[in-house]
Amino acid sequence: MKVLITGIDGYSGWPLALHLLGRGHDVAGLDNFVTRRRVKEVGSHSATPIPTFPKRQEAVRRLLGKELRFYKGDMTNYAFVRHVLETERPEAVVHLAEQRSAPYSMIDVHHAVRTQVDNLTGTLHLVYGIRDVVPEAHLVKMGTMGEYGTPNVDIPEGFFEVEFHGRKDRLPFPRQAGSWYHWSKVFDSGDVMFGARIFGLRATDVMQGVLYGTRTPEITDDALLTRFDFDETWGTALNRFVVEAVLGLPITPYGAGGQKRGFIALEDSMQSLRLAVENPPKGPEYRVFNQFDAYYSVNELADLVQRVGREFGLSPTIEHPPDPRVEAEQHYYHPILENLPALGYKRSRELEDVVREVFRDLLKFKRRLVARRHVVMPVVQWREADNRGHLSGRVPPAPAPTPTASVAPPTTSDRTPA
Amino acid sequence: MKVLITGIDGYSGWPLALHLLGRGHDVAGLDNFVTRRRVKEVGSHSATPIPTFPKRQEAVRRLLGKELRFYKGDMTNYAFVRHVLETERPEAVVHLAEQRSAPYSMIDVHHAVRTQVDNLTGTLHLVYGIRDVVPEAHLVKMGTMGEYGTPNVDIPEGFFEVEFHGRKDRLPFPRQAGSWYHWSKVFDSGDVMFGARIFGLRATDVMQGVLYGTRTPEITDDALLTRFDFDETWGTALNRFVVEAVLGLPITPYGAGGQKRGFIALEDSMQSLRLAVENPPKGPEYRVFNQFDAYYSVNELADLVQRVGREFGLSPTIEHPPDPRVEAEQHYYHPILENLPALGYKRSRELEDVVREVFRDLLKFKRRLVARRHVVMPVVQWREADNRGHLSGRVPPAPAPTPTASVAPPTTSDRTPA
Repeated sequence: MKVLITGIDGYSGWPLALHLLGRGHDVAGLDNFVTRRRVKEVGSHSATPIPTFPKRQEAVRRLLGKELRFYKGDMTNYAFVRHVLETERPEAVVHLAEQRSAPYSMIDVHHAVRTQVDNLTGTLHLVYGIRDVVPEAHLVKMGTMGEYGTPNVDIPEGFFEVEFHGRKDRLPFPRQAGSWYHWSKVFDSGDVMFGARIFGLRATDVMQGVLYGTRTPEITDDALLTRFDFDETWGTALNRFVVEAVLGLPITPYGAGGQKRGFIALEDSMQSLRLAVENPPKGPEYRVFNQFDAYYSVNELADLVQRVGREFGLSPTIEHPPDPRVEAEQHYYHPILENLPALGYKRSRELEDVVREVFRDLLKFKRRLVARRHVVMPVVQWREADNRGHLSGRVPPAPAPTPTASVAPPTTSDRTPA
Repeated sequence: MKVLITGIDGYSGWPLALHLLGRGHDVAGLDNFVTRRRVKEVGSHSATPIPTFPKRQEAVRRLLGKELRFYKGDMTNYAFVRHVLETERPEAVVHLAEQRSAPYSMIDVHHAVRTQVDNLTGTLHLVYGIRDVVPEAHLVKMGTMGEYGTPNVDIPEGFFEVEFHGRKDRLPFPRQAGSWYHWSKVFDSGDVMFGARIFGLRATDVMQGVLYGTRTPEITDDALLTRFDFDETWGTALNRFVVEAVLGLPITPYGAGGQKRGFIALEDSMQSLRLAVENPPKGPEYRVFNQFDAYYSVNELADLVQRVGREFGLSPTIEHPPDPRVEAEQHYYHPILENLPALGYKRSRELEDVVREVFRDLLKFKRRLVARRHVVMPVVQWREADNRGHLSGRVPPAPAPTPTASVAPPTTSDRTPA
């Protein structure tokens, strides 16, 4: 199948390309490399050394004997999106090209706006681009379990049957996201749902849990490694805990640590996305897949990392810094997972094994962590309107607006005398 | 009370200013005059002649003996939003400064993106601006009943009690909007709800029905008239029906005409917004008011306009063009209205009387309608990805992106050789 991956240079975009190539699919991708730049902006880098994209293409050629086509550009440029779709005419598009950090979106007003505007613009451009160029193509859009928040009822896969005042309907499950970033994903979901309805698109909206892990089976050589972020802004909970243990820092579950989330190993996320790609909706449809395979409290993960860390001769301690986020620290959590298992999804990795593998990789690249140990602990306070003061020495500048087709001069705001 | 109205030059912004001034409030406003420009772009103008803003301020001084402070600028410029809030330090902000046309948002990809990006950016800027400058101020945000769509159950005021798989929670009512514009309002609602939660803001989110009418009691002189749009893009159903009758065109409910919507007279919308302003939440809260006072099918309105038209010696016919929108033409519709009546809301105008008044005003300004009769009938087909071809002679150009603080050069999108 011809598959286009937007955000192919990212943590999951890259291993997805390798996985789909391995399954015999014809893969192309696009990226603007913004994650590489923004990770630098916060003073960090990938724990794993990652080659430039042309070197990645070379490694694929050399090690897998495959060609991987690539387009550099920004999805906020509609002409670029159309150009890629017209050149490639993909049968499936996996949309991963989004600003993916909740803490980044909470830095200040400009980062909030940039996150929501760019994510929403890229998604709308893709909805129209598919409608215009490849209306039969299947859009697999990456959302997040975080869109649902932590309601006191089970979390269905996108829709639920409701009875209210004696009448019934099947309605979208209400979204209660917990950061501007997570809201941007809610907005994307709304636009894709409406795009499917008005233009007859085929779409799978993936509500993904938190990813963890450094490896997939296709990463057979260090030249094929994917990035692995560990700083406060770009790293995720479990990944960061292992980094803390390796660096001899305390493991830091935020607050009480009772926050539960759905998690999935990087390798099993690839399995899920591949199942979605290989089983498109038969006709116009908007369907939602919850994509995780277990849920853990942050404390359970901290305990596990501590235990596995001891196998490696480390003596990690656990500390509970105040939660910088605004979230319930104890709550009911029961998301439903039926659609992916119905397509044959089976968990392939046990959490503990993956954690062991992450320890092995991070110990191997420990020098790269030591060089950046100051970026691990959280400083962005989500209730603060402006965190640039806190981020002394590692402050991301206010992001410039991404221009679309043309650029108008700045509006002058003058006060008309009353 | 010190009140700031964003979008004060608009159809409801202007009469709201007059109404609040009449009640003794201290009123200031901002606007970027984009509606004046965009109505020109589709080849139309306001049916009522409206003065420039400085002339409006002059009329207020002369006729009401009041000062109305005004700031010209764009809410996508955060420095401007902060400047106005710092200068004014309002106790309440009524946020009306948004792209408000569903058909405009459906023209093509660029109008879709422009609508969602500008509306979302302005709202986020206001959320942060209030948090930074006047954290106690009450944000009254204009939403729309259209956010809810037409579910097969009653529509509560924002939240509802749900039982699902044997457990209960109070959740936001699911949104199922029917245009990119309506989705932009859903996104605003999400951002304001989250802003209230994370920054402790006081917010009232108004889900308003479709407005109709030319007048409010404060419009005592033609120099105080508000704008009245009748073209396909900027006019609303009932208002356009009267224009069609006056011009001797058939009245055109779309499709079967069974579409039901909540409606409210302009004057009663002013009453509702004033009640919201004068009764702010006591502390941090996000509350939702449904704001309409009756719901009608489009056919009922067409019949009424036909009947009242005959009183004026007109002989309007009714025709049903195919519905250019994507909406159910027959459906259950029962929104709940409790919060505003609890604050003392009472309907002051009967629909038929208002329709009579609209006929009187439009006959008075008939010359202005005749000059623009070609813009009344619908040409934008919502299922089309690009409607600029249909809009021959009255095509709005692709809107330029609104710059925020700084402007980066356009991204070049080059293809890296594989």
